[in-house]
Amino acid sequence: MPVTHRSDCPINLAVEVIGDRWTLLVLRDIMFGGRQHFRALLEGSEEGISPSVLAERLQRLTTAGILRRECCATHRQKGYFRLTEAGADLVPVIAAIGAWGARHRGADPAQCDKVLQLESGGAEGCRAFKARLLADHPSAPPQEAKT
Amino acid sequence: MPVTHRSDCPINLAVEVIGDRWTLLVLRDIMFGGRQHFRALLEGSEEGISPSVLAERLQRLTTAGILRRECCATHRQKGYFRLTEAGADLVPVIAAIGAWGARHRGADPAQCDKVLQLESGGAEGCRAFKARLLADHPSAPPQEAKT
Repeated sequence: MPVTHRSDCPINLAVEVIGDRWTLLVLRDIMFGGRQHFRALLEGSEEGISPSVLAERLQRLTTAGILRRECCATHRQKGYFRLTEAGADLVPVIAAIGAWGARHRGADPAQCDKVLQLESGGAEGCRAFKARLLADHPSAPPQEAKT
Repeated sequence: MPVTHRSDCPINLAVEVIGDRWTLLVLRDIMFGGRQHFRALLEGSEEGISPSVLAERLQRLTTAGILRRECCATHRQKGYFRLTEAGADLVPVIAAIGAWGARHRGADPAQCDKVLQLESGGAEGCRAFKARLLADHPSAPPQEAKT
């Protein structure tokens, strides 16, 4: 069945995929929390995401080409969720959302450094962060899968 | 009843308010479509927002201090929804979302110019756009309300 979109506007096409609170929080945890496993994302969730919501969002992000699921050869059930190039390109979106939250929603100042620093670094800072992120999300199978 | 938040993370506090597809589309139409009335937002919606969803999102954005509702003295039911300073500060968020959609979601190229131009202008471009936007969303009552 072909996917139908409500419009071809770039903002609409983007929010059809990422315009959801839990989706954005899962992306935050993968980008800033360094989590790549279902269990780490579930147990580390500061907002208490439920297993079913997490599974659904990871599935949706994988289908949309934002994440890539890689199986671990030694533990079949222990999959990795890696950011794709398109996924890592969402860094400026998450950074802009965080910088706005830091400025206007009374956030804990101790938790604002990272997003404000990214914002002040502009496009160049986001590119550098994205490059480091993609190094942690290699396309090749992870080390332990090779043994 | 005090508002409780799932966490004090700036990204969470932001997505608790704007992490919703229709909310982001309403903000897009106010920012880029120059629409400030309920009827214009409803009838101009390319994605076909329903009256009840639009009313609920406008109410939520007003409560959150992102919009300010101003009544029209001559037509009591014809309210204006003006962006506040905090609302206009969402320009970089909407621009980043749009630029990502333009690049990764197969958007109509004819509709991508504005967001890609905003993105390439960086923080300075967003500030200039915000200033023009706030001029269209004055704090003072609109002209026709004075007569």
